[in-house]
Amino acid sequence: MTLPWNRLVRFESVDSRILYGEPILPHDDFDIGLLTEADKLQAKVVVGSDIFDTTGATRVTEEIVAIKKLLCPLVASEIPCVRCVGLNYAKHIQQAKRTPPPFPFIFIKPNTSVTDHGANIVIPKIAQNDQADYEGELTLVIGKDAKDVPVEKALDFVAAYTVGNDISSRKLQRSPEYAGRVPQWGFSKGFDTFAPLGPCLVASHLIKDPKDLWLKTKVNGELRQDESVSDLLFDCSYLISYLSQGTTLQKGSIIMTGTPGGVGADMDPPRWLVPGDQVEVSITKIGTLRNGVEFA
Amino acid sequence: MTLPWNRLVRFESVDSRILYGEPILPHDDFDIGLLTEADKLQAKVVVGSDIFDTTGATRVTEEIVAIKKLLCPLVASEIPCVRCVGLNYAKHIQQAKRTPPPFPFIFIKPNTSVTDHGANIVIPKIAQNDQADYEGELTLVIGKDAKDVPVEKALDFVAAYTVGNDISSRKLQRSPEYAGRVPQWGFSKGFDTFAPLGPCLVASHLIKDPKDLWLKTKVNGELRQDESVSDLLFDCSYLISYLSQGTTLQKGSIIMTGTPGGVGADMDPPRWLVPGDQVEVSITKIGTLRNGVEFA
Repeated sequence: MTLPWNRLVRFESVDSRILYGEPILPHDDFDIGLLTEADKLQAKVVVGSDIFDTTGATRVTEEIVAIKKLLCPLVASEIPCVRCVGLNYAKHIQQAKRTPPPFPFIFIKPNTSVTDHGANIVIPKIAQNDQADYEGELTLVIGKDAKDVPVEKALDFVAAYTVGNDISSRKLQRSPEYAGRVPQWGFSKGFDTFAPLGPCLVASHLIKDPKDLWLKTKVNGELRQDESVSDLLFDCSYLISYLSQGTTLQKGSIIMTGTPGGVGADMDPPRWLVPGDQVEVSITKIGTLRNGVEFA
Repeated sequence: MTLPWNRLVRFESVDSRILYGEPILPHDDFDIGLLTEADKLQAKVVVGSDIFDTTGATRVTEEIVAIKKLLCPLVASEIPCVRCVGLNYAKHIQQAKRTPPPFPFIFIKPNTSVTDHGANIVIPKIAQNDQADYEGELTLVIGKDAKDVPVEKALDFVAAYTVGNDISSRKLQRSPEYAGRVPQWGFSKGFDTFAPLGPCLVASHLIKDPKDLWLKTKVNGELRQDESVSDLLFDCSYLISYLSQGTTLQKGSIIMTGTPGGVGADMDPPRWLVPGDQVEVSITKIGTLRNGVEFA
């Protein structure tokens, strides 16, 4: 699908309006997520009630405004479903000496977990005991309802790509003492602020093939994850097709496609997120999603 | 919380309007879900934009209309989150010789799985091979945002109770050949129509203690599940408190509290849902949720 915008940011303007806009970038590879408050990024205001509209009702205007603060490019409460994929990078599975899953491992986060670029990840009391972890992930935004979609048509349903961080509580996820007999995903990864998204949406017409993208995650500037999206075991097309079997993937819903090796839990010794940490997930052509960390 | 209605139905009226209403019952124990088309149920129209409103803006009017068709009492696309609890009836766990989980086992269904009382459960192609199953469940409707709620205050956040059926695909859920190394819930139980809800909401002020309720499930008139809600391992108050840790349970979201023994998978030999089946889940004081079954 071809949208009226190329990159889309949601933001608070200097005159305190909450707006959508097409950012005016000094060059194509400019990373919006690395802006500091001193930077003066401007955007052309996007008007229309539906950012996924392709009828012409939604359009980029010539009204130029200055951005005060970037927000999550999607309104969290309006995201119909946050689907996530477990263990989905081939090298990571190999390194961890785990068996590749025969099917995508799927779980869902509540949309209350979605938070802004620049906001702090707030670790709740029950997850403050050495277990909070990051997972940098390429995130797909579905632009029109998809059901029973064949693999070869799947990318037609992607409106945009963005960067996500699937914050995880490892003990609540998989330690028998904290999670019980079987691993748990929906609860351990679903706390408020546990799914930062941003810094912008990049329209799918600008990304011919998501396999060409590269993902890096840094914690306090230290490189932790560094992998090509082409290493995905189940790629974007397959995931959409698989997930849409008997299931409507609603317009505006998102799919977080999984994380490569290099999470804190895999380090020796493991290294957990603590207050004051800065986590940056960067994907080529999209930019850097940056979030601080605090304890509730 | 005390709502302006006692029982709430959403329905198509004989003059083809979609309305909310307080049903006019011949007696308090009348089961709305067992109505046939020949029955002439009426309701007093409820007006107001928010069925959970307690300020007086939403009210039961004196306009009486005839009901043509009951719909799901909640608008599926407006349900912020459908939380479900696995293995949560003590006797069932004991009979199945399984270890009681130390914590509630939680998963989330997409709201596209929610369907009307009276609608068919549509089994998609991948789940038509001897695996579709029912799970009758008491379902809580959250009436105001809840976060970090202590057990003793948890029921204050329940607006209403209803009946749910957590339709499940057992091979996709837990057979290694179909699900992979670990059990899967979000996908196998998340297909469109896999969460029928209804036939009505019963305001929480009418149900002093959900432990007093009794659940029965019948398939084609044959009793399969027959258990007291007091057998819940983690009761309603505990579930709300547990789930609200670091997490906003949004107004209008629901919690399906788990199912007792007697599902098709537990029978010897197992008995799966097939086209033409009629599944009825009844809970005292709420009524019967009835759904047919078809293959997509």
